[in-house]
Amino acid sequence: MTRTELFAHIRAKESFLCVGLDADPQKMPPHLQGDVLAFNREIIDATRDLCVAYKPNTAFYEALGLNGMRILKETIDYIGKDHLVIADAKRGDIGNTSRYYASFAFHTLGADAITVAPYMGADSVEPFLEYEGKWAIVLALTSNRGSQDFQHASQDGGEQLYAKVMTTAAGWGSPDQLMFVCGATQAEKFAELRRLTPDHFFLVPGIGAQGGDLEGVCRHGMNEHCGLLVNSSRGILYASAETDFAGAARASAQDLQQKMAAALKKYLP
Amino acid sequence: MTRTELFAHIRAKESFLCVGLDADPQKMPPHLQGDVLAFNREIIDATRDLCVAYKPNTAFYEALGLNGMRILKETIDYIGKDHLVIADAKRGDIGNTSRYYASFAFHTLGADAITVAPYMGADSVEPFLEYEGKWAIVLALTSNRGSQDFQHASQDGGEQLYAKVMTTAAGWGSPDQLMFVCGATQAEKFAELRRLTPDHFFLVPGIGAQGGDLEGVCRHGMNEHCGLLVNSSRGILYASAETDFAGAARASAQDLQQKMAAALKKYLP
Repeated sequence: MTRTELFAHIRAKESFLCVGLDADPQKMPPHLQGDVLAFNREIIDATRDLCVAYKPNTAFYEALGLNGMRILKETIDYIGKDHLVIADAKRGDIGNTSRYYASFAFHTLGADAITVAPYMGADSVEPFLEYEGKWAIVLALTSNRGSQDFQHASQDGGEQLYAKVMTTAAGWGSPDQLMFVCGATQAEKFAELRRLTPDHFFLVPGIGAQGGDLEGVCRHGMNEHCGLLVNSSRGILYASAETDFAGAARASAQDLQQKMAAALKKYLP
Repeated sequence: MTRTELFAHIRAKESFLCVGLDADPQKMPPHLQGDVLAFNREIIDATRDLCVAYKPNTAFYEALGLNGMRILKETIDYIGKDHLVIADAKRGDIGNTSRYYASFAFHTLGADAITVAPYMGADSVEPFLEYEGKWAIVLALTSNRGSQDFQHASQDGGEQLYAKVMTTAAGWGSPDQLMFVCGATQAEKFAELRRLTPDHFFLVPGIGAQGGDLEGVCRHGMNEHCGLLVNSSRGILYASAETDFAGAARASAQDLQQKMAAALKKYLP
């Protein structure tokens, strides 16, 4: 999916919602008896018109055992072509190895995008940028407490590491193939993040369970192509743990979609 | 496997060799017809007495398709309990997600250790340290060209990022549960790396195909428990692409083992 197509979906749906498909059998309604694919299908059917992207975190599918990647692949097939599918895998290795990760994410799984870790530098990310119409989403400023350890470290010259990562990585790939992960728990940072990379999309986790501020993120972070994909996982998936879970998920997604529609009206230049 | 047990294996075998099981069907001898498990078994049988660790890179198994992790699991089962098995996966995510990665590596696959990326900080690595007798191996200074992009960046105060990562992460886990990845292509750095973390083991890729300097690494990097696991992948696995591949792999591993025996005699305090 190209950036133009993504923006067209955002305008049509008045939504830049990404639903995080972090399916945990322990948290699913008991009547599903741990059937992750059945759970995902109901969540997808209940949210399809309200979101523009789905983001399965590969760790949750690995945790299902040796059959997990098959369940993930079937989930991605079920989503189809009208949503951006992000394999949240946080991969990164030397070039010849990243090439295998890229092939798995884009060919084997059929994802449109993959999250990647920047620590190993340019040649660890470049293999993900060699696929037409696919995306690499580089970790910049994450929403967890450990983001303080290195991401916020001041570099010689004064900038923080996340800023160095963003300005450096923006040189590796255009806004049509590269995004950044920027956590919503640091909404006050979005003005600076947007200055650093005016045109790139940000994938924004941390809304909902992690307490992020949607309004603040939009006020500071939106650009003329929206430039934001805001993710919610647990807040949608586990809005109810009873037989009404799909309806509850839809209500939760709809609540976010309505806030996003208002934010688009207010902040889209 | 504990650090004491690992050191006992190193002394008994006069070897700190780690064989990288990066099995690529394209590079395997034609008569195996792409059977990675058969290839791995022959490599393992040919090198078992010469090495103390095996390091399958998970990317290569993902690249085998949806059945890849099953082949990896069977490979690990075949290795058995007398070698340290390192899942080279370079994982790292927020705490509740890293917990799933740890479970997959240690429970599902049965690995003893996993490589992890430090960018997301303490809570992304801690879940890997909660397993008795298991190891997290944190990326510090890698052997690829992209290591220049961020790892060598000078921090406010003068230290480079890899040094900050090592001294910070050394506070997360003891030398009995945490190691560092330090690439052999920068052998001149090992005196400094060893000063930064005197007691931790280093997993050292980059010998062989990547041109690293084994002698230099040993001279500067060895400590009283050896403190080094030196990896070779392609140089052993693809020493020959004919039916004699296992014998050629053994010869290549033996050459390294003999150099290691000499280095242990020379440098072990």
